[in-house]
Amino acid sequence: MRTAVLFSGGKDSSLSALMLSKCFEVELLTFTFGLSENWRSAERSAKRLGLPHKKIDFGGGVIEEATDMMIKDAFPRDGLNLVHKKALENSAKEYEIIADGTRRDDISPKLTLAETRSLEDRYDIHYVRPLLGFGRKLIDELAGRFFIVLEGENLPKRADYEFEIRCYMRENYDEEMVEKIFPSRHVHSRVLGLKSCRSFNLGATFGST
Amino acid sequence: MRTAVLFSGGKDSSLSALMLSKCFEVELLTFTFGLSENWRSAERSAKRLGLPHKKIDFGGGVIEEATDMMIKDAFPRDGLNLVHKKALENSAKEYEIIADGTRRDDISPKLTLAETRSLEDRYDIHYVRPLLGFGRKLIDELAGRFFIVLEGENLPKRADYEFEIRCYMRENYDEEMVEKIFPSRHVHSRVLGLKSCRSFNLGATFGST
Repeated sequence: MRTAVLFSGGKDSSLSALMLSKCFEVELLTFTFGLSENWRSAERSAKRLGLPHKKIDFGGGVIEEATDMMIKDAFPRDGLNLVHKKALENSAKEYEIIADGTRRDDISPKLTLAETRSLEDRYDIHYVRPLLGFGRKLIDELAGRFFIVLEGENLPKRADYEFEIRCYMRENYDEEMVEKIFPSRHVHSRVLGLKSCRSFNLGATFGST
Repeated sequence: MRTAVLFSGGKDSSLSALMLSKCFEVELLTFTFGLSENWRSAERSAKRLGLPHKKIDFGGGVIEEATDMMIKDAFPRDGLNLVHKKALENSAKEYEIIADGTRRDDISPKLTLAETRSLEDRYDIHYVRPLLGFGRKLIDELAGRFFIVLEGENLPKRADYEFEIRCYMRENYDEEMVEKIFPSRHVHSRVLGLKSCRSFNLGATFGST
């Protein structure tokens, strides 16, 4: 079954992709607003995981709508959810299964149960979140077992939505607005490689297609 | 890491167990109120999956408290949740990771996010639900790929909580009460075996321990 995994190159989407990769025919998709080449960092991570990767353009209007929402709310949650839903809906047109790295403890982007079912029904697809039943600590333990991970605050050119939205706000508003909407210093991660072939049987998850 | 999977022998707990089995040192636990030998059906399924199995007794008071709650509510949800929490707490004393077959679309037993975190903090364990991010249809697809499954309404001697609670209500109240509390005819499943070694690489999930 053709499966799209929304992919930033971080440890969550990497783990999710590998959990699905030998069960389904996985392709990693990184969405971009076209403001930066930051998607190339996800492309590099995908290459190191040995999985096919595509860059997809959001098309016009999405970043404007999401940013307006964040500024109105003075909070990024609903804007990030909007962007993520657009990425899922775009992928749902082309694939039978769409997946992402949403964890149990994530706040946003995260679809509600009702939104999840609506997405599946509207596009007649399966939407899967393999890490939804895993807590942060156990994901860290698994990622540390399989991946060489770079972690830090505001990693340069990371391929998540926030990176380009920050660029857009900086250009169209100012640094103060960026700090108002994204004040906390989240720790981000980037997968640089697999630890070893021996410890990495994760790819055999679920048996071959 | 020593991992307990609460196991009824149905397709959900079987799939969950196998997803975790090569990543962690999995033992399958079937809890019983001691009213029936129904746990033996889970023991047989465990044997066919090639995973170690244990029967655990709930001890006194649990079935009485849960049944009282169900009768008071005229609905089984909170009583089933109570029973499941007791099983999880009991397992949490002995294992580093505890897991079950809870799916995204399940109603009960199902812990809330707050209950999940409370369980993890109180016992210093990881509580994992590998199927929480999967919808019913995709689980059916995966179970059909790997398992020989028997499905039907009210399978005889199935090793779930409901089976013994029905026995208890029948003995202490009457058939009318059983029908009042558990009116719907749910389809239950039992895993009879693995389809073939070739299609079953699920065991290699996450790489070896």
